[in-house]
Amino acid sequence: MAMKRAATSAIRAFSSSSPASSVSSGSSTRLLHASAESKKIVGVFYKANEYASLNPNFVGSLEGALGIRDWLESQGHQYIVTDDKEGLDSELEKHIPDLHVLITTPFHPAYVTAERIRRAKNLQLLLTAGIGSDHIDLKAAAAAGLTVAEVTGSNVVSVAEDELMRILILVRNFLPGYHQVINGEWNVAAIAYRAYDLEGKTVGTVGAGRIGKLLLQRLKPFNCNLLYHDRLQMDPELEKQTGAKFEEDLDSLLSKCDVVVINTPLTEKTRGMFDKERIAKMKKGVLIVNNARGAIMDTQAVVDACSSGQIGGYSGDVWNPQPAPKDHPWRYMPNHAMTPHISGTTIDGQLRYAAGVKDMLDRYFKGEEFPPQNYIVKEGKLASQYL
Amino acid sequence: MAMKRAATSAIRAFSSSSPASSVSSGSSTRLLHASAESKKIVGVFYKANEYASLNPNFVGSLEGALGIRDWLESQGHQYIVTDDKEGLDSELEKHIPDLHVLITTPFHPAYVTAERIRRAKNLQLLLTAGIGSDHIDLKAAAAAGLTVAEVTGSNVVSVAEDELMRILILVRNFLPGYHQVINGEWNVAAIAYRAYDLEGKTVGTVGAGRIGKLLLQRLKPFNCNLLYHDRLQMDPELEKQTGAKFEEDLDSLLSKCDVVVINTPLTEKTRGMFDKERIAKMKKGVLIVNNARGAIMDTQAVVDACSSGQIGGYSGDVWNPQPAPKDHPWRYMPNHAMTPHISGTTIDGQLRYAAGVKDMLDRYFKGEEFPPQNYIVKEGKLASQYL
Repeated sequence: MAMKRAATSAIRAFSSSSPASSVSSGSSTRLLHASAESKKIVGVFYKANEYASLNPNFVGSLEGALGIRDWLESQGHQYIVTDDKEGLDSELEKHIPDLHVLITTPFHPAYVTAERIRRAKNLQLLLTAGIGSDHIDLKAAAAAGLTVAEVTGSNVVSVAEDELMRILILVRNFLPGYHQVINGEWNVAAIAYRAYDLEGKTVGTVGAGRIGKLLLQRLKPFNCNLLYHDRLQMDPELEKQTGAKFEEDLDSLLSKCDVVVINTPLTEKTRGMFDKERIAKMKKGVLIVNNARGAIMDTQAVVDACSSGQIGGYSGDVWNPQPAPKDHPWRYMPNHAMTPHISGTTIDGQLRYAAGVKDMLDRYFKGEEFPPQNYIVKEGKLASQYL
Repeated sequence: MAMKRAATSAIRAFSSSSPASSVSSGSSTRLLHASAESKKIVGVFYKANEYASLNPNFVGSLEGALGIRDWLESQGHQYIVTDDKEGLDSELEKHIPDLHVLITTPFHPAYVTAERIRRAKNLQLLLTAGIGSDHIDLKAAAAAGLTVAEVTGSNVVSVAEDELMRILILVRNFLPGYHQVINGEWNVAAIAYRAYDLEGKTVGTVGAGRIGKLLLQRLKPFNCNLLYHDRLQMDPELEKQTGAKFEEDLDSLLSKCDVVVINTPLTEKTRGMFDKERIAKMKKGVLIVNNARGAIMDTQAVVDACSSGQIGGYSGDVWNPQPAPKDHPWRYMPNHAMTPHISGTTIDGQLRYAAGVKDMLDRYFKGEEFPPQNYIVKEGKLASQYL
């Protein structure tokens, strides 16, 4: 990164020390205290409020701020954090004109639109604390010569574990039983008539990247029929280890699966790929787990299929948009097991992605390359899976 | 079984065809149509009502009646099923004086007390459709020379899968997120501050019989520290395969575990073994999964520890008694993930235990031995783990 990026950032960094960029009065005051080499770093995180003090490792919250404030400030950098991310009156918006680095997360995504990138004259680096940078307009970021990077691998275990939990919750019909308990009821039949073992069922993952592979490894002892679809067949050794069979044709996989797990990034190719027609190709009563991205699904098609019974259960932690509004129909459709976007932000995941962000900032300050797998856009060039 | 059992049952069978045993008028009428060799078999199952017709494989319900009615009746046997099991006015009670075989389940347990056994003059065989016969007074059954058998292995996979689901639900703090969704809320922090990965945590099973071993095998790819406590150390090969370490001392295991799973039968030794003192020896915030039996826990001690935070989460499907009354305190304690007794009665489990019951009835009619591992009480002799 060091050479090419430095050339790009020199141009953009130039305007950072120019008074012309100090549009916001709050920011310009702060800039007075910044050295010539100091960077303005803004982080957008979800607010913990009363939960902030309950766990010293809660670094992924606004209050925790990735645990890097002292480290950044001791080097003369500015570090501003906020959870106020939407609209022109938001706190984030105030800092857009003069920030150098923007740290965002998929859990409380600051949508970095082409318009925001246009106005972020000093912006050099967009870091995703976690995995999944689709809340950023990557084409616009690339066109502006920016670098976008995430902490690849930081929470893949977290997400894969969560997917296996959701598979079991749906297959075993957990939630109706839980509802009975809290409602003072007891009706085993109302649960059991559609509760199954996972053993012997056909489970397929659409996408077998890092998360998909970890999921297949964890599914192995359950004695399922495992299938996967991806652009490329996986390493024969790993295929043998998980026992998963490659399905080159997506629709062929879908027609066989009792459970489908979605493990593909949101790209222009995958946006809305599970629409009415594709869902109709799946087995009647299929169970779907989607911790990838909400926009991979056609929202209304999922609601309709859950209502008709074509989908027998749907669980995931991703929505379109996020936070999901109060009237998002997935909150109210039958047989769902949804949560807010949480699977990648366990305490363990937070500690890993906080460390990964710190590492990349350190390299950025020193003009060093990032770990290659972290780049989504490198100095204006989009990673291959997003092309 | 054939010889010794035949001797015992000859005595008890004798009174079955004697008018003296026909205390209930309803039963005596039915006996008129029974041949000299016909048996009166009563099954107690949970009622499915409107759910009965929704799944042709729902054989574990009252309506499904294990799918053995035609088979039994074609051989001249009587087969009565009911879900009405409690008290002297119950349907079950009417048949106690002249039934030969009583089939019960752990999911909707007919409590077979010493008093009921005393009055069941014709009773020869008690079959548990599933695993766990602690709803039967086994000492009284042994004293009366009865045989008690269950379908060992029929739902061990079902229960082990369910345990892993519950571990993940607690470790990852699933339910608060689900509640937010259905309540129209979105607060990632309120979930994340106590959501963890399972990876790297210490998980121990108290009891490493069939279910405990299956659980350890399924936990293996999660990269936990696995511990187990049992009367005996397991086969070195299986220990190596699961990576689980033996803890001879229960309290030593408990002091190390982030997650404790209870996989021991309910016996006089294990009844109430998790009382206030033992729970206090566990790590602060320990997560407990108990699909074994509710009475292994001191009910109020669990409530108190969940309220104080000594227990960070409690999940299971077993209660004392069952069905749990509306005011059972486990319904209302904080951080629980309880369901009615369901883990062993998935559709897959039902098909297996229905087949196992049919097999044992067939052997009983032919005077053949049962599979040895199925015996809990064999002709008056209690299996070793219950002594």
